[in-house]
Amino acid sequence: MKLVRFGEMGNERPGLVEADGTIRDMSGIVPDYGPESVSPALYEKLAGADLSSRPAAPAGARIGAPLCRIGHFIAIGLNYADHAAETGAPIPKEPIVFSKAPSSVSGPNDDVLIPRGAQKLDWEVELAVVIGKRCDYVGKNDALSHVFGYAVCNDVSERAYQAERGGQWIKGKSAPTFGPLGPFLVTADEIADPQALDMFLDVNGQRRQTGNTATMIFSVAEIVSYLSQFMVLEPGDVITTGTPPGVGLGFKPPVFLRDGDTMHLGIAGLGEQRQTVVAR
Amino acid sequence: MKLVRFGEMGNERPGLVEADGTIRDMSGIVPDYGPESVSPALYEKLAGADLSSRPAAPAGARIGAPLCRIGHFIAIGLNYADHAAETGAPIPKEPIVFSKAPSSVSGPNDDVLIPRGAQKLDWEVELAVVIGKRCDYVGKNDALSHVFGYAVCNDVSERAYQAERGGQWIKGKSAPTFGPLGPFLVTADEIADPQALDMFLDVNGQRRQTGNTATMIFSVAEIVSYLSQFMVLEPGDVITTGTPPGVGLGFKPPVFLRDGDTMHLGIAGLGEQRQTVVAR
Repeated sequence: MKLVRFGEMGNERPGLVEADGTIRDMSGIVPDYGPESVSPALYEKLAGADLSSRPAAPAGARIGAPLCRIGHFIAIGLNYADHAAETGAPIPKEPIVFSKAPSSVSGPNDDVLIPRGAQKLDWEVELAVVIGKRCDYVGKNDALSHVFGYAVCNDVSERAYQAERGGQWIKGKSAPTFGPLGPFLVTADEIADPQALDMFLDVNGQRRQTGNTATMIFSVAEIVSYLSQFMVLEPGDVITTGTPPGVGLGFKPPVFLRDGDTMHLGIAGLGEQRQTVVAR
Repeated sequence: MKLVRFGEMGNERPGLVEADGTIRDMSGIVPDYGPESVSPALYEKLAGADLSSRPAAPAGARIGAPLCRIGHFIAIGLNYADHAAETGAPIPKEPIVFSKAPSSVSGPNDDVLIPRGAQKLDWEVELAVVIGKRCDYVGKNDALSHVFGYAVCNDVSERAYQAERGGQWIKGKSAPTFGPLGPFLVTADEIADPQALDMFLDVNGQRRQTGNTATMIFSVAEIVSYLSQFMVLEPGDVITTGTPPGVGLGFKPPVFLRDGDTMHLGIAGLGEQRQTVVAR
């Protein structure tokens, strides 16, 4: 199933996408999609619903992030060997873990805002994983059974804030609109192999990132298992799993986003995002 | 006012502490204290309530963390000049920002669990700040008006996970029970000056940390303002603001917590915590 949330910012409703693309309003079935509701029980409830009796979303409705509220927004750094190489960093021996502010999440097609005075805004197409069951010392072989679904994430980054302002990456990863998520939260049963997904990102119509989740250093299962050794993952937590080569920082000289630039990105089976960059 | 939550883990009720220490059950007034409710309106509602008509909490009830759910659990590193010195780190030019998993939060007197195989468990008494109003580019002079209240936090840390496992501190700060919070969430009006609070921490009855928030490198107002330049802070977000000297890592040789150790810590006006360390 493809879960979406549609409507004005801050007032989205939960929806389900039919095979022909029609979005059905599921707010009569579940109040919203978020930490309180994302679970195997939600899957059963949606799967058993009679879609034909649900109203269709208005044509052209805005699409929001597919979760109303993220508990913990975790990110993995340098998780594609060739991306690590382009940034000049060594291949990590263990996953590099950082976090993004939950308030950075935005809809897949909302404007991306340049923080005041920021000069080094960069893009990162990533596979995001949404946790559906509590994870506490979960083994690698059991990890994927704890995943509710997958979504596209643009891990928007301000490189100066990330690396030149005092050590921890969170500063460059957390501004409002730095976490476009969606359009869909695709349930795990629809993704036969999360390690075989093509992904791309264009800036101003020019291809910048081309990749496939097959080249991740640490697989989704390894990441979920690894994280659960250090912290409890809870339903509704989101893990964005790193980006393939082609970020602006990797160009010589580096290329950063400017007011008016457009981004277009997507992952096979998970949908596409289109954002315009706007100065605050 | 002193807000508390009492009752079994996962089933706490919101309460208010009277001058004589009696806890009144406020669940008829507000469902719980958390991101949805912490606000100036909650303050008014509690301040206007007739406490005598509210039932008293059962004697000896367990005290939980004073928030049911933390949105973003942010922490400031090396924010006391003498603590930075004891760890061998230079004085930061800007606040060092990292985060703790929201799932690390526990009650002030709950056991602190040693993660499997962990060898370098450490203590950190800290002043935690609870945000009450959305912060987006808030100036330093206006920052404290966005603070709902204050609490004691023990920023429990596993130093090997923090520093020897791949770069970002979050790995050593996020295990379950690594964030004892409370007992009270003391509203900001009761803390005349957050930069003049005595704090202490004992391990097994021996004084280890003695400090005062007067020696912070960056004040609470500076931290809130600074963070709001990089991310939006939302009601219910918690910022723990760094620790004074005397952590285990600073001893020569270092002293770390072991199964059966006890911690006793507190901050003037905010109450005290007592934890026993237990291996998982």
